[in-house]
Amino acid sequence: MSSTITLLSDFGLQDVYVGVMKGIIAQIDPGTNIIDLTHQIPPQNLAAARFCLLNAIPYFPPRTVHIAIVDPGVGNTKRRGVAIEFSKGFLVGPDNGIFSGILSLYPPTTAVELTNSQYWLTANPSNTFHGRDIFAPVGGYLANEVNIRDLGPEIELNSLVNLAIPAIAITDTGIIGSIQYIDRFGNLITNIPEISLKNKNWGLKLKNEIVLSSQTYSDRLVGRIVAIIGSHGWVEIAVNSGNARSTLGANWGDRVEIVFLESDNN
Amino acid sequence: MSSTITLLSDFGLQDVYVGVMKGIIAQIDPGTNIIDLTHQIPPQNLAAARFCLLNAIPYFPPRTVHIAIVDPGVGNTKRRGVAIEFSKGFLVGPDNGIFSGILSLYPPTTAVELTNSQYWLTANPSNTFHGRDIFAPVGGYLANEVNIRDLGPEIELNSLVNLAIPAIAITDTGIIGSIQYIDRFGNLITNIPEISLKNKNWGLKLKNEIVLSSQTYSDRLVGRIVAIIGSHGWVEIAVNSGNARSTLGANWGDRVEIVFLESDNN
Amino acid sequence: MSSTITLLSDFGLQDVYVGVMKGIIAQIDPGTNIIDLTHQIPPQNLAAARFCLLNAIPYFPPRTVHIAIVDPGVGNTKRRGVAIEFSKGFLVGPDNGIFSGILSLYPPTTAVELTNSQYWLTANPSNTFHGRDIFAPVGGYLANEVNIRDLGPEIELNSLVNLAIPAIAITDTGIIGSIQYIDRFGNLITNIPEISLKNKNWGLKLKNEIVLSSQTYSDRLVGRIVAIIGSHGWVEIAVNSGNARSTLGANWGDRVEIVFLESDNN
Repeated sequence: MSSTITLLSDFGLQDVYVGVMKGIIAQIDPGTNIIDLTHQIPPQNLAAARFCLLNAIPYFPPRTVHIAIVDPGVGNTKRRGVAIEFSKGFLVGPDNGIFSGILSLYPPTTAVELTNSQYWLTANPSNTFHGRDIFAPVGGYLANEVNIRDLGPEIELNSLVNLAIPAIAITDTGIIGSIQYIDRFGNLITNIPEISLKNKNWGLKLKNEIVLSSQTYSDRLVGRIVAIIGSHGWVEIAVNSGNARSTLGANWGDRVEIVFLESDNN
Repeated sequence: MSSTITLLSDFGLQDVYVGVMKGIIAQIDPGTNIIDLTHQIPPQNLAAARFCLLNAIPYFPPRTVHIAIVDPGVGNTKRRGVAIEFSKGFLVGPDNGIFSGILSLYPPTTAVELTNSQYWLTANPSNTFHGRDIFAPVGGYLANEVNIRDLGPEIELNSLVNLAIPAIAITDTGIIGSIQYIDRFGNLITNIPEISLKNKNWGLKLKNEIVLSSQTYSDRLVGRIVAIIGSHGWVEIAVNSGNARSTLGANWGDRVEIVFLESDNN
Repeated sequence: MSSTITLLSDFGLQDVYVGVMKGIIAQIDPGTNIIDLTHQIPPQNLAAARFCLLNAIPYFPPRTVHIAIVDPGVGNTKRRGVAIEFSKGFLVGPDNGIFSGILSLYPPTTAVELTNSQYWLTANPSNTFHGRDIFAPVGGYLANEVNIRDLGPEIELNSLVNLAIPAIAITDTGIIGSIQYIDRFGNLITNIPEISLKNKNWGLKLKNEIVLSSQTYSDRLVGRIVAIIGSHGWVEIAVNSGNARSTLGANWGDRVEIVFLESDNN
């Protein structure tokens, strides 16, 4: 049975950075199943990385090794490299908050600081590319049955860096949240979770109208704004057959207002 | 022997949509060989999807499962999900015409509507991401020897949605066609097939000149327009070491005129 | 043990060109481990291809087959297709200088011209897509134990096309070089190798300042220019948490000046 590794980064696909990490894993075991989550995280955008990783993790086999590298502090000796074991597998990368979304949903069982250079590409890693020199080989060995405790000393779980998502404000009349992610279609994904709208009729408040929530993109006419619970389980703003980002001139972090509506059958 | 699955979509590579589909297939069998055809179909451009899929299919092993998702009608209950068996393997995706190019070249033998939720990720799929909830798991099971008839009831082959390519007009003096695809190099691929030019001398009619057909891009000087039978078997307009799209200001669907020329040896 | 093939090209990921090459390799052996180095070489930029390939090669398993296709001369009968054996594996592609960086570092042992159409997709290859018709199948067979000498007649190693990198000028006071590559982060990678700065204190000369060399990107304040030995082993110009290309208005080939500085402890 092949073991599975996922890769997520802000390296892009223009350069050979990602290919080189795969070559190093292939040297450990060419039969490893390597799956790219994305390498197009906006450069150094930890919030986007955290969001993407959190939404992908549930769909992978048990004991998958997830290597995630958005690493503005690479080469800074205060930034630890870590490996973490949790109920669905392993996480490998910088300890800068990139894993914090996952760790609050799936409590980790073990975390170690990556100090054992025996599992690195070289005992003298570069100051600029720990993906190649440390994280890829460590991930490759973890996927090939090396024990996480061999990678370095155990560290306190509550010492791991936490990166909170912006808070939402819930009142009796509605919810104020913000845009936490914008996808390739220009869909605006908010930080308002499905659970906060359970058993409610709701709508999206824009300047001049309230957009009633829909079940599908095509519930509204082509070109019209749609408010929907998206596939990730967050309130999402879309345009039927169009691009909500450009239609609304929206951007990362923008304020979003949901209003509760009278139920028809109340 | 590994089974092979291909993926084609308009999901792009920025988000984790594609990675998630691969995770689901890895849960069914991590040894499956998954090949990306492209995920950069212009959003909701079924004509481009149909063209790309048609040109890729001939090059894959027998019994390959091709999952193709450009799906403007996702969540609409009238849009069926289908699996189709044909001489070269299987097709899985929405029944919206995305497969129509293939089906007219390679007649299908069986088609089923995807209704058996036992082979889905969940019996309650989202209204926005059937790639994850239905098509990826169904494709994964098909590649792992589940019988197509187990996926849902058989449907009439002639009930599958057909999406015709724009017609070409052939006269005694030439052919009027149009641009059906523009590739990354800016090459303009027309809907005029090689067969329509068999045993003819021909040229491309532009405003002020007739460009004689060439055998290779480098038959003409650097920067000059080239009219050629492209690798897909269609008349293609290129610029030697340049970009025909920007040189000619051309766009999807633009009219193209081919003229027949006197043969030298007639 | 799976065999490994890498692919590098300027085909981009928008079209199905890359997927088709993988399909052909899967027909030869679907268990082959295919790794993309990059397909986003700027169109027909042999210098970028040469740089990327050279920097990736050291990280792959022994006997890896590297297929590299940036091929402005495709279809021209004077441009040979070649397969080359060297200490770390095999190279397959056009003989246009794309391999010259590797060949000067790792002397080849055997080179053949690809003339035996038995290992091609078709005995009548297209004039526009030798990646599909010749290089992918030849690479697939090489990875599956076909002997390189079966692919065509041996050719003189010194007949392979050589593409020199621009020279650097070293004086007693410094080094004049140029930008040979710009990565996705806008980092400017020069042609000045680490070795030329051994045991020197050095700085980067800009219009109005000298930027002292750093060990890590974060040695300087956010937004400031950093001069560093990059992960590839070349002098690299970056901006801490920013984009050096846009900050400096720099471009491929631009002149770069390094100055030697007095050592503190001399």
